[in-house]
Amino acid sequence: MNDKAAIVLFSGELDKAIAALTIANTAAAMGMDVTMFFTFWGLNVLKKAGACSKASMLQRLMNAMNRGLPLSRFDFFGIGRVMMSRLMRDSKMQTLPEMLQTARELGVKLYACTTSMGVMGLAQEEFDVDGCVGAATFINEARKAKVSLFI
Amino acid sequence: MNDKAAIVLFSGELDKAIAALTIANTAAAMGMDVTMFFTFWGLNVLKKAGACSKASMLQRLMNAMNRGLPLSRFDFFGIGRVMMSRLMRDSKMQTLPEMLQTARELGVKLYACTTSMGVMGLAQEEFDVDGCVGAATFINEARKAKVSLFI
Amino acid sequence: MNDKAAIVLFSGELDKAIAALTIANTAAAMGMDVTMFFTFWGLNVLKKAGACSKASMLQRLMNAMNRGLPLSRFDFFGIGRVMMSRLMRDSKMQTLPEMLQTARELGVKLYACTTSMGVMGLAQEEFDVDGCVGAATFINEARKAKVSLFI
Repeated sequence: MNDKAAIVLFSGELDKAIAALTIANTAAAMGMDVTMFFTFWGLNVLKKAGACSKASMLQRLMNAMNRGLPLSRFDFFGIGRVMMSRLMRDSKMQTLPEMLQTARELGVKLYACTTSMGVMGLAQEEFDVDGCVGAATFINEARKAKVSLFI
Repeated sequence: MNDKAAIVLFSGELDKAIAALTIANTAAAMGMDVTMFFTFWGLNVLKKAGACSKASMLQRLMNAMNRGLPLSRFDFFGIGRVMMSRLMRDSKMQTLPEMLQTARELGVKLYACTTSMGVMGLAQEEFDVDGCVGAATFINEARKAKVSLFI
Repeated sequence: MNDKAAIVLFSGELDKAIAALTIANTAAAMGMDVTMFFTFWGLNVLKKAGACSKASMLQRLMNAMNRGLPLSRFDFFGIGRVMMSRLMRDSKMQTLPEMLQTARELGVKLYACTTSMGVMGLAQEEFDVDGCVGAATFINEARKAKVSLFI
């Protein structure tokens, strides 16, 4: 049985998402079984484009604000984000969508948190994930994992 | 002996406190021995209402600012917080005080960090905790734990 | 063989750097083998003063912004930072440079992340570290460690 890694991505920031996926993909490439749990703002990383019909007014307002992935520092309403993306491209790093694609190819399991989805009025079809699970599934993976991180 | 989990709550933000307590309570409900260490801004989560007599002027100023638990994103001076609380209530989630109560009922150990308390001039009677401990106690729990998280 | 701890410092904030080094130094003082990986904004903690000749215009701009270590809350353009430093001194805590010195004396291994260095156009001689390594080195330490944290 392979070593396991379990990573929660709570943050909805570009730099933290990149860090989480770099760790996940590297671990998977080294032969570990990696599971990622996207919760709260982190759900943003997995959200497909498109409308959200079942959400309430308040949920739709929260979801409308919660678009895009800023930097955790120096975002400056998007300028820092563009600079960072440019710097990453210049040093031949993958973009975030490419990293997600690589994660899928390496067999990283991507799960969305059902509790956060309930609060935000989001449905499974709005995400490109292996499944929607609760905290118990994360704990169960994490207790068997060699590495558990909250990002 | 049960599996252990050790969680540091460093952040003083509502959403991160909810995430930490959701993980802690779920792990405890699954039969794990869970210890939470509240440090720095995270101490806010455990602070009782009331004055802080032994603190210096500067400590009192810092403590006066460090009230309430904003969101880590979209707080907008409290508007986001109210929206989030409303969304949580709508989806029948527990409030943070209810989660803390559940944590106590499930036997989650809640510790305040003595170093942070010293810096902020806070005394044990200002917290509703199982004890006030230093980093060594956390390390000692974490090295025996299956899951250690810094939130 | 001693128990291991592996800590990623991603954040470039004074309070989080203090938390990371408090945990690292305490673990090392308790006889654990501790490795710290400084990545993204966390690289700031290790940066020596001085120019950065090989960086591009955009990298130099990013690095120019990325100076100093603010607080994660109540920084107020440096005022909170000064208050916090004052409070730490009043309670006889070590400063961050002193903590780094203690870390080195206790044998904590300090590594800078090569990927982040590449993106930011930073070279090894700009850091006072034990080495520059990639994510694989972190994973390899973390999977053998009793405690792995992402801060």
